[in-house]
Amino acid sequence: MRITDMHITPIAVGDPPLLNAAGLHAPYALRTIVELVADDGTYGLGEVPGSAATNAALEAAREVVIGQDPFQLNAIRREIDERLGTGGAAARGEPAWTKPRLVHVHSGVEVACFDLMGKAVGRPVVDLLGGRARDRVDFSAYLFYKYEGAGGDLGFGTDSNASGWAAARQKAALDPAGVVAQAQAMRGAFGFKSIKLKGGAFPPDEEADAILAMYEAFAPGTPLRLDPNAIWSVETSVRIGERLKGVLEYYEDPTRGQAGMAEVRRRTGIPMATNMCTTSFEDIPGSVAHHAEDIILSDHHFWGGLRSTIELSRICQVFGRGLSMHSNSHVGISLAAMTHLAAAIPNLTYACDTHYPWQGDEVIVGGKLQFDDGALVVSNEPGLGVELERAALAKLHEQYVRCGLTERNDEIEMQKVQPGWKFQAQRW
Amino acid sequence: MRITDMHITPIAVGDPPLLNAAGLHAPYALRTIVELVADDGTYGLGEVPGSAATNAALEAAREVVIGQDPFQLNAIRREIDERLGTGGAAARGEPAWTKPRLVHVHSGVEVACFDLMGKAVGRPVVDLLGGRARDRVDFSAYLFYKYEGAGGDLGFGTDSNASGWAAARQKAALDPAGVVAQAQAMRGAFGFKSIKLKGGAFPPDEEADAILAMYEAFAPGTPLRLDPNAIWSVETSVRIGERLKGVLEYYEDPTRGQAGMAEVRRRTGIPMATNMCTTSFEDIPGSVAHHAEDIILSDHHFWGGLRSTIELSRICQVFGRGLSMHSNSHVGISLAAMTHLAAAIPNLTYACDTHYPWQGDEVIVGGKLQFDDGALVVSNEPGLGVELERAALAKLHEQYVRCGLTERNDEIEMQKVQPGWKFQAQRW
Repeated sequence: MRITDMHITPIAVGDPPLLNAAGLHAPYALRTIVELVADDGTYGLGEVPGSAATNAALEAAREVVIGQDPFQLNAIRREIDERLGTGGAAARGEPAWTKPRLVHVHSGVEVACFDLMGKAVGRPVVDLLGGRARDRVDFSAYLFYKYEGAGGDLGFGTDSNASGWAAARQKAALDPAGVVAQAQAMRGAFGFKSIKLKGGAFPPDEEADAILAMYEAFAPGTPLRLDPNAIWSVETSVRIGERLKGVLEYYEDPTRGQAGMAEVRRRTGIPMATNMCTTSFEDIPGSVAHHAEDIILSDHHFWGGLRSTIELSRICQVFGRGLSMHSNSHVGISLAAMTHLAAAIPNLTYACDTHYPWQGDEVIVGGKLQFDDGALVVSNEPGLGVELERAALAKLHEQYVRCGLTERNDEIEMQKVQPGWKFQAQRW
Repeated sequence: MRITDMHITPIAVGDPPLLNAAGLHAPYALRTIVELVADDGTYGLGEVPGSAATNAALEAAREVVIGQDPFQLNAIRREIDERLGTGGAAARGEPAWTKPRLVHVHSGVEVACFDLMGKAVGRPVVDLLGGRARDRVDFSAYLFYKYEGAGGDLGFGTDSNASGWAAARQKAALDPAGVVAQAQAMRGAFGFKSIKLKGGAFPPDEEADAILAMYEAFAPGTPLRLDPNAIWSVETSVRIGERLKGVLEYYEDPTRGQAGMAEVRRRTGIPMATNMCTTSFEDIPGSVAHHAEDIILSDHHFWGGLRSTIELSRICQVFGRGLSMHSNSHVGISLAAMTHLAAAIPNLTYACDTHYPWQGDEVIVGGKLQFDDGALVVSNEPGLGVELERAALAKLHEQYVRCGLTERNDEIEMQKVQPGWKFQAQRW
C-alpha cells in the first residue's frame, strides 16, 4: 500500500467572538485539512491548526510522504524530521521548522495514515490503538466569555433566524449570569456533564463569581473547571484558588510556568491541570521535578499524534498524573480522531475539552457529529469513520482565501474592539 | 474476529549447565507456549517463561480471553486484571496473582493477539507497532561461565557427534581463556558484533580478567558488557569498574538496588544498564529520582507486552535513558516477537541480548531462526512469521512432563554440583 498523493487544504470556519487571555477570536478559525490518497483508491484524513507556516511545512513534507506505506509510521516520522528538522533544512540553507510546527505536521500525517490503515484493514482507528477502553467518550461544555455575535460572515452580527443552540451561541456572555445562561443552553443542547470556563478575560474575582454561580446552579455532580490561560500571578492564583477550593474539579493553568504552577498547587491543594506549562515530552522531566500539575491536558495535534499521546498516557500513569484532553477550534476530522484516541486510553478518565459546538461549519459528509448525552459514541466504521464532503471543503477553502487571515492572532482582533489593547503575559 | 480457544502448553527445552549468580541452569529451561485459535481458522502464538504458577495463571485467564476480539487489547488486559488481580481473585477467596505473574500473562496473550491481528490483516507484527525503524535487529553474543555439558537428556554429558557451534557450546568455560574461546566460537557461528558476559559466578577480579582478555582479543569495535547480576557490593562494583573503565560498553547490574547502582554510576562514570533495579513502570519514579542507570534492558515478557515496551521506550527517550533488550532462555516465538518489537523502536540502538544459541530445541516450523551476520532480518510474513511445528511442541511438552521441573531454581541445581551451596544476595 502506497501513498500516491497528499492534498493540503487550508480552510476557515466561522467562529464567534470568544474572549480569552490572548484577546478575541477572529470571525474565522483556521484549520488545515490533510488528505492522503492511496494506491488502493482510498483516502485518509487529518486536520491540524491552520497557519501559513504550517501549510508551508506540510507542503515541504509532501515530497517525503508521497510513496510511503501508511503503516510505516516510524519511517514517515523520521523522514519528515530529516526533511524539516534542523539537520535537513539547514543543509539546504532553509530555516528549520520549529518543534511546534513539526508536531502539527506529524499529527496531521499520522492521523491520515491511521485513517488509511483502518480503511485498508476494515477496522476503526481505535482498534489500531489497542481497542476500546470505552464505547463512549465524554466531552465537557466549553464556556467562553463572549461578545454578541455569530462569527463567520456575520462577525459581530447575529442571524435572527437561528434557533436552539445556534441562536444561543450568538448571545453575549460577559458576567456570571451570562455564563450560567450559556452553560444552560449548551448543556441543554448537548448534554455535557462537565463544564469548563475559559477565563483570563475579566478581573479574577468576576471569573470566580461566575464559577461560584455555576456551582450554585449545577452542583453537585457537575465538575467545574476554570482556565485563565496563565495570565494570573501566583498570588492571584492562590487567592482565587482559596475562593474556589472544593468547588473546582481542576484549576487549569492559572499561572505561568512549572514552578509557579507547583507553588499554586502546594499552597491551595486544588488539583492543577495544564496544557501550557507541560506541553511536550521535553517538559516532562521538569514537570516531575517540580510536580507542576496533577492532570495533563493531552492534545494529539501538539504532542505529535495518536501514538505519542498513548505514550504520554503511560507517563501520566507512571508519575501519578491524570489525563484530560485539550482542544482548539476544529471540525469533525479532529473530533473523530480525538474520540478514537480517547476511547483507546484507559486512564483518560476526564471529560475531554472541545470547541466543536462553537463552529457551525463542517467538512464531513452528514454535517456535524452529534453528541449523545454529552458523549460521542465511538464509530465502528473503518478508519476515522468520517468522509470528506468535497463541496463543503471547497467552500471553506474559498472562505479561507477570502478572509485573508494567515495565522491566529487574538490580540489584533481584540484591538479592533478595544484600540490599543495589548496582550500581557501576566495581567492580574 | 473472535478467539475461540486458548491452548497453554508447558515445554522444557534442553539448556546447558550455565553458571550465574543464582547458581546453575538446570538441564532444561521451562517455557510456556500460548496458542490462541480464532474463528477465522487462524492461530496466534505467544511464549513466556515457564512455571507451574504461570501456567495456572494462564489457565485462569483463559475464561476471559476466549470470546474476545484480538484487536481489543485494552479490554483483554482489563478483564485479565479483573480476573487475576487483587480485586477479582480476592472476591472469590483465591490468592491474587502477583504482578510478575500478571505481566507474563499479559505478554503471552498480547503477543498471540498481535500474531492473530497480523495474520488477519496480512501484515507483519512490526507494521502494527508503527512500522520498521530498521530492517535488521542486531543481537549480542551472550557468554556464560559454564561446566562441560550439553544439557537436555545429556545433562553434563556431551554429544561427540556434534559439530560447529553445537559442539562448541558443550565445552566448559571457567576462566578467561575459556570465555574467549566461547566468544570466538559463538561469534564465528552467528556473527554477533557485541559481547555480553554473564558474571557473578567467579571472584570479581577473575571476571574482570575475562573482560580484559576479550578486550585484548576483540577490541576495538566490539562492545563488551558484564552482568554480575547484582551480587557485588557497591565497593566491589566501583573497584572492578575502575579496572574496566573505557573497556565496557555498559556495566549491567553489578550491585543491587537503585541507590547502589546510582552510586556506582556516579563514582565510576561507566554507563550503567539494568534489568534488575528498574524492572517495571512502578520503578520508573525511583529510577528518575536516583538516576540509577543509563540504559534500561527492556523485556516484553516482564514489562507486560509489546505495547508496554514501546511506552517504556518513550520514557527512556524522555529521561535520557538508552534502551537495550534482556533475554531469558527461550525458543523462536519469543525471538520473533523480540525482533518485531525491536524493529519498531527507533531508540532501541543497542544489540539485544538473547540466550537463543544455547537452546537446541525448537517448536517452530523450519527449526531455529538463522542469524545473518549477528542480526535477524525482520520477517515480512503476516503476524510473527513463525508457525508451530506441532510434533516438536508435543515432544517438548513430553520432555516437560518427564523432567519433573515446575519452576526455575538455579540454587537447587547448583547444590547438585556443590552440596550446601547457598545463594547470597551479595557475595563479593
